[in-house]
Amino acid sequence: MRTIDWVDGAIELVDQTRLPDECVTVRITTVDELIGAIRRLAVRGAPALGVAGALGVVLAGGDHDAIARLRAARPTAVNLGWGVDQAAAWLAQGREAVLATALRIRDEDIAACVAMGERGADLLAPAETTGRLRIMTICNTGALAAVERGTALGVVQTLHERGRLAEVLALETRPLLQGARLTCWELGRMGARHRLVTDGAGPYLLAGGGIDAVLIGADRIAANGDTANKIGSYALALGAARAGVPFFVVAPETTIDFATPSGEHIEIEDRGPEEVVTVRGVRVAPEGTGAVNPAFDVTPHDLITAIITDKRVIRP
Amino acid sequence: MRTIDWVDGAIELVDQTRLPDECVTVRITTVDELIGAIRRLAVRGAPALGVAGALGVVLAGGDHDAIARLRAARPTAVNLGWGVDQAAAWLAQGREAVLATALRIRDEDIAACVAMGERGADLLAPAETTGRLRIMTICNTGALAAVERGTALGVVQTLHERGRLAEVLALETRPLLQGARLTCWELGRMGARHRLVTDGAGPYLLAGGGIDAVLIGADRIAANGDTANKIGSYALALGAARAGVPFFVVAPETTIDFATPSGEHIEIEDRGPEEVVTVRGVRVAPEGTGAVNPAFDVTPHDLITAIITDKRVIRP
Repeated sequence: MRTIDWVDGAIELVDQTRLPDECVTVRITTVDELIGAIRRLAVRGAPALGVAGALGVVLAGGDHDAIARLRAARPTAVNLGWGVDQAAAWLAQGREAVLATALRIRDEDIAACVAMGERGADLLAPAETTGRLRIMTICNTGALAAVERGTALGVVQTLHERGRLAEVLALETRPLLQGARLTCWELGRMGARHRLVTDGAGPYLLAGGGIDAVLIGADRIAANGDTANKIGSYALALGAARAGVPFFVVAPETTIDFATPSGEHIEIEDRGPEEVVTVRGVRVAPEGTGAVNPAFDVTPHDLITAIITDKRVIRP
Repeated sequence: MRTIDWVDGAIELVDQTRLPDECVTVRITTVDELIGAIRRLAVRGAPALGVAGALGVVLAGGDHDAIARLRAARPTAVNLGWGVDQAAAWLAQGREAVLATALRIRDEDIAACVAMGERGADLLAPAETTGRLRIMTICNTGALAAVERGTALGVVQTLHERGRLAEVLALETRPLLQGARLTCWELGRMGARHRLVTDGAGPYLLAGGGIDAVLIGADRIAANGDTANKIGSYALALGAARAGVPFFVVAPETTIDFATPSGEHIEIEDRGPEEVVTVRGVRVAPEGTGAVNPAFDVTPHDLITAIITDKRVIRP
């Protein structure tokens, strides 16, 4: 199953807002439909947004205004703009050239996730060692965040395939519960042992011992290694550092943004109060309650043990 | 309004599971009803549990088995057992003596919360200074956690009454959302400006600056100052330490347990998966998903700036 693909002249993507209740594919034929799907997080995850951006340029034809709006649909993940730019560079060569570029980005993402999974599993569980690992993670960085395999959860999947995974402790990831809804769903399909944890419990469970590594994805990595990822990642990094648990970022090279010198220059999207004062449509706070809702946070590079990409292992 | 009281020969308490949708008082006439109310968190919060324990001994009459079950209804908060023991010590003197002790504990809690509020507000916003403070807090430590005024939220209330409160950033406090449901409700009734925050966002917002102090309550404070409090408190303490924001525990002297030398000796209640895989009755994870659900965590004393009690300020 592919999370996002080009089928018979349109984008088809899994509507992630409806998981885990039902797995539904939607067909997207216009840029505005795609922008809507991106904004409501029907498609999300940095690598998947890169592919969505590139395929969106095919839908846009030569409409530069639509391309600009697509590029700005979400501000934090670097891959969306990168995918748009890669495809848009071929506009003068015609639709087929743009489509070929978008499909190449799709195929490269699949290959990059395979490479990250192998490199990460080699690093965490070298062949000369034995034993199974207990991994903590946040948000969803699996196939649903990419095309066919994931980034951080791709490493988990490779560990599982090699018989080296003991268990995953998945943080639920409020407000939109991508950990509870999507990561647990993917781990269940893999047959990998896992338990769900509230976000506030992550650092405390790390302090208790028995967890071998924290693996997270990334939405944008600054030139100095500071990493923007799902809100809650920074708290987990603080907990890992205090507990002496290694903390790994897993992301394709395309997520590294050399134009951004450090984390303080990364724009963090605030998605408004509604997602916080409700949970899956159920109100959890009194009427009229306001909220602060940063969708991402920035983990400073000194808290990161290593960044695992499709090409190398970087130790900030 | 009192959260818990003795009215016409029975305990009356606000059923906190139904807030913020409706504010309903329930009447409790047997120890088993009280144990049920404690277990499902209709009454919660360390000081309120102390009063509940003492009043429960009145309901128990001389039934020592019922008293033992009441004492063990929840393991982490020291005040429940303390309240039970205080009242049970008067059993030989008859029901009136037990009741008088329980009512004294109730009245002392009210006075202790007033004292904590004043001492905390004096410490955070001394009279010789000006300016309003932005405070971050977790869980509910207001009147609903005590009898008439709260502990950490009692300090907030006093700051508000003195015109020295700018805003409260309230962590929602998964899994049971006491911050979203109860703290926002109380702050709304006070007329205090506040916004809700997911638990994972707390440490990141601290890193961003503009927050003057973190105030939390306590369920048990070990002799060395290590403090058990609602899950998520430890992550917040890590965030405050990294950001250089002062981190205060506000609790009555009765929460200090000199029989417990350090945090590692505090029993932490795991409340099972159901609270994590559902939110207010709505399922958020695939069927069959397991969970780890520690209700509390332990913040080591080196992360605590000071403990504010009804009698003194302790700097661990």
